[in-house]
Parts: sequence; structure tokens; C-alpha cells
Amino acid sequence: MGPSRSAGYALETHPQQYRHWRLAIEPPLATLTLAVDEESPAVPGYKLKLNSYDLGVDVELADAVARLRFEHPEVRAVIITGGLDRVFCAGANIHMLATSSHSFKVNFCKYTNETRLAIEDASAHSGQHYLAACNGTTAGGGYELALACEEIYLVDDGNSAVSLPEVPLLGVLPGTGGLTRLVDKRKVRRDLADVFATLAEGIKGKRAVEWRLVDGVFPKSRFQESLRERALTLAALETQPKGPGIVLEPLAPEVTSDAVRYRHVTLRLNHAGRTAELTVNVSGGYSPLRVFRELDDALLRLRLHYDEIGLVILKTRGDLEHVRQVDEDLYQGRGEWLTRETVLLMARTLRRLDLTARSLFAVVDEHSCFAGSLLEIALASDRIYMLRDSEGCVRMASSPLNGGLLPMTHGPSRLQVRFLADPARAEEIVAESEPFDAGAAEEAGLVTAAVDEIDWEDELRVAVEERASLSPDALTGMEANLRFAGAENADAKVFGRLSAWQNWIFSRPNATGERGALTLYGKPERPQFNWRRT
Amino acid sequence: MGPSRSAGYALETHPQQYRHWRLAIEPPLATLTLAVDEESPAVPGYKLKLNSYDLGVDVELADAVARLRFEHPEVRAVIITGGLDRVFCAGANIHMLATSSHSFKVNFCKYTNETRLAIEDASAHSGQHYLAACNGTTAGGGYELALACEEIYLVDDGNSAVSLPEVPLLGVLPGTGGLTRLVDKRKVRRDLADVFATLAEGIKGKRAVEWRLVDGVFPKSRFQESLRERALTLAALETQPKGPGIVLEPLAPEVTSDAVRYRHVTLRLNHAGRTAELTVNVSGGYSPLRVFRELDDALLRLRLHYDEIGLVILKTRGDLEHVRQVDEDLYQGRGEWLTRETVLLMARTLRRLDLTARSLFAVVDEHSCFAGSLLEIALASDRIYMLRDSEGCVRMASSPLNGGLLPMTHGPSRLQVRFLADPARAEEIVAESEPFDAGAAEEAGLVTAAVDEIDWEDELRVAVEERASLSPDALTGMEANLRFAGAENADAKVFGRLSAWQNWIFSRPNATGERGALTLYGKPERPQFNWRRT
Repeated sequence: MGPSRSAGYALETHPQQYRHWRLAIEPPLATLTLAVDEESPAVPGYKLKLNSYDLGVDVELADAVARLRFEHPEVRAVIITGGLDRVFCAGANIHMLATSSHSFKVNFCKYTNETRLAIEDASAHSGQHYLAACNGTTAGGGYELALACEEIYLVDDGNSAVSLPEVPLLGVLPGTGGLTRLVDKRKVRRDLADVFATLAEGIKGKRAVEWRLVDGVFPKSRFQESLRERALTLAALETQPKGPGIVLEPLAPEVTSDAVRYRHVTLRLNHAGRTAELTVNVSGGYSPLRVFRELDDALLRLRLHYDEIGLVILKTRGDLEHVRQVDEDLYQGRGEWLTRETVLLMARTLRRLDLTARSLFAVVDEHSCFAGSLLEIALASDRIYMLRDSEGCVRMASSPLNGGLLPMTHGPSRLQVRFLADPARAEEIVAESEPFDAGAAEEAGLVTAAVDEIDWEDELRVAVEERASLSPDALTGMEANLRFAGAENADAKVFGRLSAWQNWIFSRPNATGERGALTLYGKPERPQFNWRRT
Repeated sequence: MGPSRSAGYALETHPQQYRHWRLAIEPPLATLTLAVDEESPAVPGYKLKLNSYDLGVDVELADAVARLRFEHPEVRAVIITGGLDRVFCAGANIHMLATSSHSFKVNFCKYTNETRLAIEDASAHSGQHYLAACNGTTAGGGYELALACEEIYLVDDGNSAVSLPEVPLLGVLPGTGGLTRLVDKRKVRRDLADVFATLAEGIKGKRAVEWRLVDGVFPKSRFQESLRERALTLAALETQPKGPGIVLEPLAPEVTSDAVRYRHVTLRLNHAGRTAELTVNVSGGYSPLRVFRELDDALLRLRLHYDEIGLVILKTRGDLEHVRQVDEDLYQGRGEWLTRETVLLMARTLRRLDLTARSLFAVVDEHSCFAGSLLEIALASDRIYMLRDSEGCVRMASSPLNGGLLPMTHGPSRLQVRFLADPARAEEIVAESEPFDAGAAEEAGLVTAAVDEIDWEDELRVAVEERASLSPDALTGMEANLRFAGAENADAKVFGRLSAWQNWIFSRPNATGERGALTLYGKPERPQFNWRRT
């Protein structure tokens, strides 16, 4: 359960290497079939029975969703279904959860949540409609996976049900968006949701439709055919020309004990200080797709492999004007499918950054390049320190991409959230054609502190040391509250409300203590609860 | 730390009995002066130094806010200030928190949050503007109290600062709305909020104004006078005739080992089954103000005195048509000040019910009276069971008060939240002049289950037993997620996002373990953190 365990997780994969999913392309449809190899867990110690999933299974799913967008734009609808007998998916593997550290459990859930949001993002913005073909038992995280699809169909075989048995069987929540998507996305009546989420055996057939838990049921004999018809109907709605697809190249970073190096992104680890430096270097040219894919991978490694790093210093290198020009091209070309996909991927990566539970300090210094889409990295940070050099060479700049094309999880742009008190300011900054030197950036409210050269090193060092000395839990909670000002939507509630409650429950003896329900799942003993309500 | 400890908390008080606050009425102003008697904690074991507060202090504040509305309608602005030398308020008492059970900590914070929302409700809807006159140190919960006021003024004496030192000093959050109100209510820029919330010494003077932390600073010599002027200006905005005030009579329930009995409300406790029955009986006539004050008090006793009760069965008794007539009068008369205050109090009480972390089952049976404002009690419940009697005598009914005058914390009515999938339905139910028998109620989606007489007792018994057997933590988390469908505002974020994170932190060893920061506060030892981020 130490860092060494999670350090083994592979985050890059390819359909040819999948162990748990089969991806079949038959344009305009694709089918993603879950047939988990129970003998191939991500780390040794448990079997992945009944199409239950662990991080390794979800890494493949996330890979498939990403490749479908970029490599198979001809696909207009995707059917997710089960490949084992009478089971769609039984959810997250309980033995994996029960034997994982708290930190891993939380990050595992965050990752799977992000994968499900990527599915919804594809349905909403990429013209790839996801349908869940629940051809057997659809339990817990299995139903939560279905909930991420645009439509859910259940086989009517007198046996197969959808269920969220976490509360009655495990003493934890359906925390991968389940409760939120029930009442907020599918608008299931709250009392029916209450009954459903406490009923271990779930709901099947006509009642599942009446309660809005699924969009339809079909008998086994007509199931595949009906799903195919429905998928073709949805696919036919998408008439925009797309393609040809491009190949997502391997990232294959070089990993050493104190660094992870990609072509443009470098993550340097200071294990003793519990800090890291994440540098995005585009001085050789800005290729947004590659750069943001690298950034995304680096963030995942940070979360899953280096959980004792509490503070990340974010830096950039490159030419401001070049980045602004690339951004301008992306903005002008956003109607074209590949450009749109690139911007959507950039947006998802930036949301992954917002949701990374580490303190983030952006450092704007000589040769830095926080412009436009890279400026968002600074805007996602908890603080922005800028060097006030005597020549005024240190600068930041906006681009049209700061105007809302890279939204936060809850909808608004980072500039809108930053200037909630002065909405016009956000628009002025987007429209500003001149770069901001330290004085102008401070005046505009873009930086937390503009610091003179003589104080620069000391002030940064003290800020970093102070931050790294504070309680990691208090910082995680504080950052989760300060980063997301403004009204919350369902997506934000998954991370804010639902995940926070789940984290609390994961840390309570009633779930994870020696006699807790999660600990004892599958064992003959009954859990013992401390009955006090809070 | 057992239930016996909290059972001692007195929830009713009167200005003549205050130990910690002084209420001075000088129409159109009132001044609430905090001068905590450090030798009078709510329970023995700690001293309330430096104007720090515990539940007893906040019970007095809540009482004052309620009495100002009803007993002193001539008051149009309220100044909250400190009565000790150079201190406004140092926040919640740390030794009280450190020695309290998790369950008490959570409920203490919930109560203080509700008191602060009552202050905001008075500023927004009752024409009583609250100003914080921070005439000295304003730290932690002290600043959170100020944040609940419409305007905040700080003395400029070169020394007094506002601060949120929870993260750096205690390893917990400013969880009484602090973080949320910073960025959502006062719209403080998120990076400045980050600096502020990690800076133990806080911010003073001009910078506090620039960062939007306070609305102004005045030198000591002009402080009182300037506040008075500002309060008179706000008071002058309120020109609606109000008064004369009425007296809020004592509730003085009769408390026995298995019941709390008020005039209309009875809370019967089944300690062995960990359930309670809460009955609202208006068969002798419906006096909404009295009934809802009793209900409010009963809910607080339930939360604070009986934390092992996991499930509350909600019942009503009375005449449907009488309640509807009283509601109709309230609706027609809502422009008049006392009627408006009564409806606002009903709304706050119902929100207290929504936020009560116990399973709530409404039972609609013979002689029950879930009509209009009392129907909201059922709509606030997790489930509604209705007896389907052969004569059709068991009925429910709506009134105009179901149309939005009794909103939930996040804004919408309970019917709107219930019928998110079918907004017209909520309006139809409000407009329906006929009562609903079991068949009609089921058809309209008003009940979870309409149960035949022959199955009634068994079905209820099984539902209650099943519910009472589930993990109390999982139920608390589940209910907090299913009850509040729809977009969230700042108020909802305080309870959903902020409180959930705080509960998590309260249960983590880094805060409350033997070497946790909260445990060791004020002791010579330094806390020891597990540095893993989650």
C-alpha cells in the first residue's frame, strides 16, 4: 500500500495491448466490449471477477475513448456492452478497494470520474454518442458507467437488473458520480433514488424504465439488434464531415528516480522537499495536442505515483507570440473537427489540473511563456508569482482561447471565476492584444505577487517552504473550496459534494475499520457500526 | 464525549439570561455586543478565552437574531461588535473542538452555519441589515461571523486584523462558511483568498479593503461613530411599516427519557430501535409560528441530544382544510411584516429539516394532515409512505405555500426539486384545489409507495428495520447527495462542498489524531503529518 505499489501503474496503453476491453470499429458504429481478464489485475493481490474493474481496466477505457475521437472520427455512436455471460459490469473491484490506501482509493475514484466525464464530453461535443447496452448484471460502478452514457438500455431477461448496492452492501457511496447522475442528470425522483440506492438487488424491467433508471428494455432475442438500430439512429444525427483520423503517438516518457521527461513537459521531483517542478517547454515549437497529452500524463503520474509531493511549481518556456499565433489558428479553425478535438482535449487536461489535489504555484520568470492556452495553466494555479525584471522582458499574454473555450468543470472560464467581482475585467483581458509585463499584470489582477529581482529567490523559497509545511488534508480541502467559485452544476457536484462525502466515508471506521463494511465484504463476519449519526 | 455530555445543552434562552451577548435596542438600530464570559462554557472542561465561542454562545446569538425579527421590528440595522478589549471574536473555541466527539463537532458547525444563514436571511428579507463592527482581533470563526454580515468594517489601529488561521494553525478548514463566503459571497480573488487563508496573522488596514476582505477601515477614534452613521444610512433604506412586535413565548417542552413533548409537536424516542417518531398535531388549531418554532427546537434536540437515532418517522395530525385555509391567509397576507416573518421562519425550519443528517420517512395515515406548509415536511423526507384505505379518507393536499415561498437552501422549492424531470408537474400540484387520495397521490408522484391496508404495518416495519440496519455514515452521505438536486448556490456549497470536506478533515489523524494539529493546538509539541496527498 506504499508509494511503491502504485508506482507500478501503467498509464499508457493501446488497443493491441488491451487485456480487458475489445474495441470493434464498424463505421458509423463502434462497440466497446468489457470482458475483464480476472487474472490480470493492475497490481497483484485480487481477482477481477464478474467484470469488475480496477485502474488498469479504466486506463484502457480512457484510452479507447480518446482514440475513438482522434483515430476514428468516422465513428458516430459507441455501444458499451459486456462480454461475459449474463454480466455487463459489477463495478469497481471491492477487494482492490478494501486493500488500497485511502490516498489511492480517492485518486482511483477521481480518475474513473474523469473518464466518465470524457465519455459525456464526447457525446456532447464530439458527435460520438455513447449508449450503454446492459446485457446482464449492471451493478455499482457498472451502473455508474452506464449513467455516463447518453442512453441506457437493459436486457429484459427476468433476471438482469441495474443496481447501486454500495450503501447496503459496502457502507460507502456510489461515488463515481452515481448519486449525482441519478438525481441531477437523469432526474430520477429523489425518493425513488433513495429506495433504489438502498436496494442491494436493484431494479429491473419495466420499473427501471418508469423510474427513469434506464431508457428502455428489450428482450434478449432482440437486444443486440435493437441497440444497433438505436445507435444507427443517433449516428445519423451527426452529419458534419470528419476525418481522416490521426494516430495518437506513444508518449513514452523517460522516467528516472527524480524526473519524468517528455518531449515538451518535464516533471522534476524534489522528494525531500515534497515539491515538484512541472515545466512545459515549447521553445522548439508549440504543438498543442502533443503538449497537453504530455501534461495530462504527467498529472496522472503525479497523482498516482508520487503522493507525497504536496506542491507543484508550474513553469513554461517558449515564445509568447508563437503560442498566441497557434492559439489564434485554433480559435479560427475551431469549426474543423480535429481542431475542435484538440481544444476539447486541452480543456479536459486543464480540468484535470484544476482537480489535482496538490498546491499549485505558477512561476512567471525569464523566458517563461504563459500565453493564451498556456496562461490557463497559471490561471488554474492557487497562486501566480511573477518576476518584476528591470527590463520588462518577463511577460504574460492572453489569446482568444482564454474567452471560454477551455471551461472549468462547473462551466465558466478561469478568467470569469478569477474576476467574479468584476466580470468586465475577464473580457478586457481576453481582448487585450498587448502582453502584460509585471506591472501591467499586477494592475490587471493576473498575478498574486509581482516580485522585484532582489527579493525574488527569497520570497519564492519562503512561500514554497511555508506551503510545504502545512497539513496536506487541510490544503486539499481548502484548495477544493477556493478553486471553484460560482454556481455548481452536476459535474462539479460529483467532485465537490459527492466525492467529499465519499472521502469522509472512506476514512471512517464504519467503512474501512477492522469491522467496517468495506473491510468485511465477502467475509462471513457482519460489520459492526458505531451508530452515531453526524 | 458520550450522548450524556451533549444532552446537557440548553437550546432555549432569553436576553435576560444571556451570559455572553448584550443586546441593546436603540431604534432604528440595535447593537449586539459579544463579551464572552470565559467561565461559562456550555459544558465544563474549557475556558472561553478571547471572545471565543461554543454552542452556548451561538444559541444566544441565534436567539437574539430571532427576537430582533419578531420582538423588535422597529430595528432596521444591527451592529455586531466585540465587548472585550481589542478583540472582536477569536472564533470557535479550540479546546472545546479538540475535546468534542466527531458527531458533536459536525453538528456544532452545522448549527453555527445555520445561525449565520439566519443573519443573511434577515439582511436579505426582513429589512434588518447586519453590520460587523470588527473593533479588534477578528480571527477564524470570528471573521466567519463577520462574513455573514452584509458589510464588514475593521478598526485601523495598526494592530487589528481579520484572519482565517485554521489551515496554518489547526490543520482544519474555516468551515463555518468561511472559504465559500470568501470567494462566492465577497468574490475575493481566489489566489488572494489562498494567501489569506494560509496566513496565520491575517490582513489589516488598507490591504484588507483592497482584497475585498472588509468594506472599510476607520481609525479607532472615529470607529463607533462611523459605524453608527453607516448603520443609520442602511436603516434609512427600510421604509416599510412594521410592528408592533410580538413576544416569542417560551417553548418549554416536557422532556422524559423517551419523549420530548411540546404543545403541538411530540418527539417519541425508540432508543433500542434507534428510531424516533416526530408528530406535528394541529388538530386543536394550526398556529404556524408556534408549530414551526416547536419543530425547529425538536430538530435541534434530535441532532444534539440523541445522536444514535438514525431514522425519524414524520407524522401529522389535523384537518387538511383548516391548514389550507391558514396557508391561504399567510399567502394573501405575505406583504404584511409579521406574516412575512412567520413564513420566513417556517422556511428556515424546513431547511433545518432538509439538512438534518437522519433518515426521514413521512407516514401518511388516517387522521394525518400533510397539507400545504405541512406537506413540505413530507416533501423534505427521503421517502413518503401513504396508506391506501378503502374509503379514500387518507389524503394529502397542496396550498399556495408549496409554490416557492418555502425554498430549499439552494433556492428551488421542494416540489421543483422533486419534479426536476417534469417542471410543469410541480406547478400543477400547487394549483390543484382538490386533495389527493392515495391513488391520486401515487399518480401525481407525491408518494414513494401507496400501500394497501393489509400490507401497511408489515411494509412499514420492514422498511424501518432495513433502514435502521444500514451504515449511518453511508446514509448521511447518500441523503446529503440525493436531497439537493439542481444547481448549487453559495449557501448550498457551504453545506455540500465545504462541510463535507471539513467532516473528512475532522476524521483524519492529521487533524484529530494523537499528533494531529487540532489535538496539539496550544501545546508545546509540533503536529506530525502523514504527508500523503489524496
